[in-house]
Amino acid sequence: MTNLLQGIVEGNPLVQRRAIAKAITLLESTRTDHRAQGDELLTQLLPHSGKSFRLGISGVPGVGKSTFIETLGLYLLEQGHRVAVLTIDPSSSVTGGSILGDKTRMEQLSVQENAYIRPSPSGGNLGGVAEKTREAMLVCEAAGYDVVIVETVGVGQSETAAWGMTDMFVLLQLPNAGDDLQAIKKGVMELADLVVINKADIDPRAATRAQAQITSSLRLLAMHGTAEQHDGRHWLPQVIQISALEGTGVDEFWNTVLAYRQLQSGNGQLDKRRQRQAMTWMWERIEAGLKQAFRQQPVVQTLLPHIQQQVLQGQLAASTAARQLLQAYADSGTPPATAQPGSHGQA
Amino acid sequence: MTNLLQGIVEGNPLVQRRAIAKAITLLESTRTDHRAQGDELLTQLLPHSGKSFRLGISGVPGVGKSTFIETLGLYLLEQGHRVAVLTIDPSSSVTGGSILGDKTRMEQLSVQENAYIRPSPSGGNLGGVAEKTREAMLVCEAAGYDVVIVETVGVGQSETAAWGMTDMFVLLQLPNAGDDLQAIKKGVMELADLVVINKADIDPRAATRAQAQITSSLRLLAMHGTAEQHDGRHWLPQVIQISALEGTGVDEFWNTVLAYRQLQSGNGQLDKRRQRQAMTWMWERIEAGLKQAFRQQPVVQTLLPHIQQQVLQGQLAASTAARQLLQAYADSGTPPATAQPGSHGQA
Repeated sequence: MTNLLQGIVEGNPLVQRRAIAKAITLLESTRTDHRAQGDELLTQLLPHSGKSFRLGISGVPGVGKSTFIETLGLYLLEQGHRVAVLTIDPSSSVTGGSILGDKTRMEQLSVQENAYIRPSPSGGNLGGVAEKTREAMLVCEAAGYDVVIVETVGVGQSETAAWGMTDMFVLLQLPNAGDDLQAIKKGVMELADLVVINKADIDPRAATRAQAQITSSLRLLAMHGTAEQHDGRHWLPQVIQISALEGTGVDEFWNTVLAYRQLQSGNGQLDKRRQRQAMTWMWERIEAGLKQAFRQQPVVQTLLPHIQQQVLQGQLAASTAARQLLQAYADSGTPPATAQPGSHGQA
Repeated sequence: MTNLLQGIVEGNPLVQRRAIAKAITLLESTRTDHRAQGDELLTQLLPHSGKSFRLGISGVPGVGKSTFIETLGLYLLEQGHRVAVLTIDPSSSVTGGSILGDKTRMEQLSVQENAYIRPSPSGGNLGGVAEKTREAMLVCEAAGYDVVIVETVGVGQSETAAWGMTDMFVLLQLPNAGDDLQAIKKGVMELADLVVINKADIDPRAATRAQAQITSSLRLLAMHGTAEQHDGRHWLPQVIQISALEGTGVDEFWNTVLAYRQLQSGNGQLDKRRQRQAMTWMWERIEAGLKQAFRQQPVVQTLLPHIQQQVLQGQLAASTAARQLLQAYADSGTPPATAQPGSHGQA
């Protein structure tokens, strides 16, 4: 364990790359003893982590995320940064790997010594995939990567997961009518600290129209936001245009990121955001664990099919069914507290 | 218990009204023995319930919900219906009652023999309030009310709760620019089976513009919906104009509701929707109960402050903290199953 930690924190490039891969594999293991070792490693790594800037990048398939991230990554390497790219793709459990394989997608970036690209962990639901990604991020940070990019595939709830573990959330958009409405509908637009209109070179007039429209949408969305957002000391979401293919606008993009970082560090929002994220994360994992333990309990597994049937056939009220199952669950072990979801409980 | 049941199902108007009130009070009680009696009553009532049409009505404060519901209620009474109006207002726990008091709000409707108006249950979170409302709905149905209106106050997540217990969800809108964007942002627009532009008489041209705009938004929102929605055998959300104050458009509104009901009954969607709702409801209550039992557990209560502090100070990873707390919780009683939120669990 100490060797692994040392390899991650101090190793020469080759040793470090192997140590990172080994650590992530350990953290992704479902074996109980691995899990205990993984937790020990995490706790040891933690003082070395947290020093990167965590950048979430999202957008629907086809918006040009890979090209953008590769361009951005190479730009950052030139400036002396070390860049890690992690992907959240819950669908990767189906194919047993990320859709196109990230190494293939980012050919130029992946061969660079100071870039580390990790495809989405596979297997399980979004909560599990996001947990592994978050832990991999801590490993990369301990290894000295100072920019961690968390990319989402832009489907399902992966955006919310990426937003929940990054310092800044960027939404890539095409200059299409209706595209922004989809983002608003999915609740992704309101997560964005920065909206980037990609492929602006294809139709500059459409891009400018889209920029105006999204800016106006963001203002309307913020209308009911907190007053403190509008005092100039807090960040207001911005909209910029780029062309990842031609490599234009990456400068402006990164300057906007730096301006965000400076403002949000100065006013304490960055620290607050990370603390909120940690608490949310902890409770999400607790709830997932409670529900899993419940579903795996033999008494529950025996009763559930019959009770569900009764509910579906209208013989048992859903709330009564819930109380019966909770009672049986509590009776099966030592009831830590009567498991009654009363009206004063935490729902 | 049998008397209460009889009073609800068969009683003369006065007896029935008292029995309903007594049953709802019993169901809202947090005393354990009351809860057991309440569950028994619910199970007995269930065969007599479910025969009403359940109509959810939502809209931001000021849109004219009360006036609309009163007009609609009186219109339905004239047609021989019996109408119950229930309100979901999580904020009522603060004031100890619904914001304005429903009886005062719907003066004409509340004095009618065939109308039953119940303000929001008070106390507790949205989950608890919604549970009581859902149970009260079953009581009203058993008492022969054949139209149950579930009104929301249009703030917070009360819309989702109302949508989760009704056959049809109606969103009232003002003919204002940006109003529809707020509804899209909050995710309420996509829940709507019918959007009603109220107060259309004030500015008929604005109302017509709003109708066109919302219709176009609904089409865009449905673009990524399931293909089966577009085959004519399924309902597509509609937009109509009314003026509740002048009483115009109530006819058209109710005819639209009847058309929806006929289509969705015929294609089986209404039954499917109720079954899905019951399952969702059951699992929501189970999760709320599990979380409450966890939080009330003495070992958890002892450990939590220290562990939270460690997470906030960056000494403990959030996922490690979750595993530690789950383990302590499992060890405190008989662990029904190792409470490890692995990547294959139900998150």
